[in-house]
Amino acid sequence: MKMSNMLVSTLREVPAEAEIESHKLMLRAGLMRKMAAGIYNYMPLGLKVLRNIEQIVKEEMDNAGAQEFLASAMLPAELWQESGRWDAYGAEMFRLKDRNSRDFCLGPTHEEVFTDIARNEIKSYKQLPLTLYQIQTKYRDERRPRFGVMRSREFIMKDAYSFDKDQEGLDLSYDKMHEAYVKIFNRCGLDAKCVEADSGAIGGSNSAEFMVKSEVGEDDVVFCTACDYAANIEKAPSTPEKEQVTELKEIEKVETPNVRTIDELIKFFNTTAKKFVKTLIYNADGKIVAVMVRGDREVNETKVANALGGVIELEMASAEDVVKATGAAIGFAGPIGIKVDELLVDNEVSNMYNFIVGANETGYHLSNVNYGRDFDGKLGDYRNITEGEICPHCGAKITISRGTEVGHIFKLGTKYSESMNANFIDEKGESKPFIMGCYGIGVTRTMASIIEQHHDENGIVWPISVAPYHVSVIPVNIKDEAQMKVAEEIYNKLKSMHVEVIMDDRNERAGVKFKDSDLIGIPMRITVGKKIAEGQIEFKLRNSSDIEVINIDEVYNKVKNQLD
Amino acid sequence: MKMSNMLVSTLREVPAEAEIESHKLMLRAGLMRKMAAGIYNYMPLGLKVLRNIEQIVKEEMDNAGAQEFLASAMLPAELWQESGRWDAYGAEMFRLKDRNSRDFCLGPTHEEVFTDIARNEIKSYKQLPLTLYQIQTKYRDERRPRFGVMRSREFIMKDAYSFDKDQEGLDLSYDKMHEAYVKIFNRCGLDAKCVEADSGAIGGSNSAEFMVKSEVGEDDVVFCTACDYAANIEKAPSTPEKEQVTELKEIEKVETPNVRTIDELIKFFNTTAKKFVKTLIYNADGKIVAVMVRGDREVNETKVANALGGVIELEMASAEDVVKATGAAIGFAGPIGIKVDELLVDNEVSNMYNFIVGANETGYHLSNVNYGRDFDGKLGDYRNITEGEICPHCGAKITISRGTEVGHIFKLGTKYSESMNANFIDEKGESKPFIMGCYGIGVTRTMASIIEQHHDENGIVWPISVAPYHVSVIPVNIKDEAQMKVAEEIYNKLKSMHVEVIMDDRNERAGVKFKDSDLIGIPMRITVGKKIAEGQIEFKLRNSSDIEVINIDEVYNKVKNQLD
Repeated sequence: MKMSNMLVSTLREVPAEAEIESHKLMLRAGLMRKMAAGIYNYMPLGLKVLRNIEQIVKEEMDNAGAQEFLASAMLPAELWQESGRWDAYGAEMFRLKDRNSRDFCLGPTHEEVFTDIARNEIKSYKQLPLTLYQIQTKYRDERRPRFGVMRSREFIMKDAYSFDKDQEGLDLSYDKMHEAYVKIFNRCGLDAKCVEADSGAIGGSNSAEFMVKSEVGEDDVVFCTACDYAANIEKAPSTPEKEQVTELKEIEKVETPNVRTIDELIKFFNTTAKKFVKTLIYNADGKIVAVMVRGDREVNETKVANALGGVIELEMASAEDVVKATGAAIGFAGPIGIKVDELLVDNEVSNMYNFIVGANETGYHLSNVNYGRDFDGKLGDYRNITEGEICPHCGAKITISRGTEVGHIFKLGTKYSESMNANFIDEKGESKPFIMGCYGIGVTRTMASIIEQHHDENGIVWPISVAPYHVSVIPVNIKDEAQMKVAEEIYNKLKSMHVEVIMDDRNERAGVKFKDSDLIGIPMRITVGKKIAEGQIEFKLRNSSDIEVINIDEVYNKVKNQLD
Repeated sequence: MKMSNMLVSTLREVPAEAEIESHKLMLRAGLMRKMAAGIYNYMPLGLKVLRNIEQIVKEEMDNAGAQEFLASAMLPAELWQESGRWDAYGAEMFRLKDRNSRDFCLGPTHEEVFTDIARNEIKSYKQLPLTLYQIQTKYRDERRPRFGVMRSREFIMKDAYSFDKDQEGLDLSYDKMHEAYVKIFNRCGLDAKCVEADSGAIGGSNSAEFMVKSEVGEDDVVFCTACDYAANIEKAPSTPEKEQVTELKEIEKVETPNVRTIDELIKFFNTTAKKFVKTLIYNADGKIVAVMVRGDREVNETKVANALGGVIELEMASAEDVVKATGAAIGFAGPIGIKVDELLVDNEVSNMYNFIVGANETGYHLSNVNYGRDFDGKLGDYRNITEGEICPHCGAKITISRGTEVGHIFKLGTKYSESMNANFIDEKGESKPFIMGCYGIGVTRTMASIIEQHHDENGIVWPISVAPYHVSVIPVNIKDEAQMKVAEEIYNKLKSMHVEVIMDDRNERAGVKFKDSDLIGIPMRITVGKKIAEGQIEFKLRNSSDIEVINIDEVYNKVKNQLD
């Protein structure tokens, strides 16, 4: 395409709304524009990249034997009521009514739809295994849409659902998707790590996320410094530290006026955070639950929710509920005498001696408290692993990085097929629920993640596999007929070779054209200038600073080599 | 693909919900399934057809120089408030609120969005002309979703918007789209006629529809029996009949107890419908308007709305309003003494003499009424043309057929650019509104229309250009190793030739496989049976009843010839 005919919308300034590089560059390169908070329009250049990613996803899904499907985005409430998620999904689900006041939602995900399809269309084990996928627009009303398409409210997702007759079948289907995902992210030039993930909320037995390291990622990912182990912090087991065994002392009630936070307590008692145990109070689907962890630890809410048997909504209890449970102002909660439905105690607390907790009385703490002697509770791993703890696989030290999830694969088992009565007839003539898996890739988020990993101070550096165009041909002076003739020749010849090529025939200075080409991130640049007098042009790769002066007829092989 | 791995969902029975052939066949061939009223899921086979149609649309749009874009489906109310359509669009628009109670709709069309894009991104006449298109899901809450995807609530549309600096530019952009549409429908094997259409409601100067003849179509289309003239009945001008001039008689008030309808009046007065003039009362955006047409004519509401200067909502007045306007019960409306904001009189009425009208008094009519002498009103063409009237171009007789709109091209002019302040700087440095056009193709409806035109009693007969697969290879007996070997060879060789081929390796009788292949509508069928002993197979085209027995190695050229 010739750029004089294109809608080119590059910006020199960084738009104020953008905080991270991919967001800035997607706006500056004119790939997309904001329509509303977390809702974007894709401009021609951006859409080309998106379509390239989709094509890679499609090819690898097809190679893995999955079949493409397209479900509606607008879904009737009845389906979600069957699975129980109509109520479970909170404000994140966009809901609407039709002209007859029927309830609908905009699908945030499609487990229900595909379970419904399976129960209607698959009668017999002979039709299994089956994996269906779609590339489709999803809707989630994020509380805080941010970082462009990294956390948006309308986004494109590839979601796939597998149906098997038994667990071995599911394992196979899951492995095929795992393999396809590795290929997809590789082909997109994206360094995405497969990490163990929690399978709590959706339910199911096994789950892995494909994570891209990113400072603005929403997840903490645990990596072993020695072995391959990698896991979402939600999932990674912590190892309780052990205090040296000490003689148990008598409980002492200490007056601690206005001393509430751990920092204030450390100062007041002149000791370290390790000598305190925090008692945090949660509302878990209406039940009041207290969770105890050492003063310097963070509660892992996923672990807590799982321990409670799959809580749907876990949030800090209201001030009112805290006061009710402790009989004291906020800041003085402790295990002794607390009135809660359940008391969860992190394993580590049972290895501590003579620690300090709140007294459940405003202005007082208790010291020399001991688990077992002074209170009981359900022991378990309720805290986040921390930097420097040990790998659960090999015992080496772990590190923690922020990450963004670009893919998720998940063994659902029978969670949906049982609640929605989705059954098939097995070899023995018996009716059995489908064993299901689900598999998602955030297509728009993948695009942004590629930019996060492939950019420099001048703009995007697209991997060839997803670049909107492979080559940009730049005549330095469009008023120079000889230059234009050579540029046109190269442009036309490359087009005839099925190379995706643009020619920047705009009436702009060469510097402007170079800047735009770099910003947009075209992998190869061919500059046609005065050197054509000697039959020469310039060839430059976006990811290198070298400019090669080559003979005109050499350029076609140069391009071909890069594409191969 | 091998059918043993495919989700094949053919049905022998016709589902009760389907009334028309395309709907029946899309369900029976397993192309789609209903999710909710007017909302469908596309199964793998149906999606392949849809993607083929989309690809044709895309190629022709690209060839016409249009650039692909992708706007969000969820649109903020503010944009629609700017154009005035937030209120104008009635119950047909799906509306919803986000978690912060902001108003959104699901886009039924995208004029506002693209006008917004243009005003933000196009600064100068140098960037014009520009045509952007998208293939995207649209939402319209139809009062009566019907006929499968022919009238659905969630559907796929290609919509394009052109931006020009002047009228000549628009004419050119419009003509390019016209040409592209002709190519698209031709390539899809669809016989779609371009007919003149009304441009009233959306506003603008010129408009044409691409219509497919269909008994269940929503529009009446007027065709000339002699020349090329074709128009939507909304648009086709009628020719007033002329009564022989007669002496005007004195008005007579006739007691007509309980005689209200034209049929009752004909009986009562013992004359023909041509001696009566109907007075119909409308509510036009709150104004009360009476329209008079001859007793045997139908009011053309589009013409009425246009005569009133672009009414947004025109509907029959409420009983209460009729009583208020006429001072009589319903059925006795007439022009004399009626209290309305406007009285529209069809041209033909001014050519009639001594006709009968309601008396605006319950139980009475007036005879010997004459336009001009007894009442006045705004003369114009307010009625539908009827079968047998004359062509406005050549004077030959016209016929009327039902039709379905598959495409619509439209010169919008400055309707949106003016209301939304979308301007560019012209050659003289002056700010001017964009001259716009808009262009739509119903992609899902095109799919159904192709089936309406290409089916027989056994199922769909896809044109090769859009068929989900080109060839179906059917081994008669999958337990016969020799047959399977030949079938596999043919299947693999065709695949290597990039032919879209399926092999029906299911453990079913050959009859079942033939039936499915015909129902799904695969253009070519290769049957591998006992004749392989003589090195022969059967080759059959879906659109012919001939079965050719050919040598195995001849089959590749056969297929190739069909694809060329």
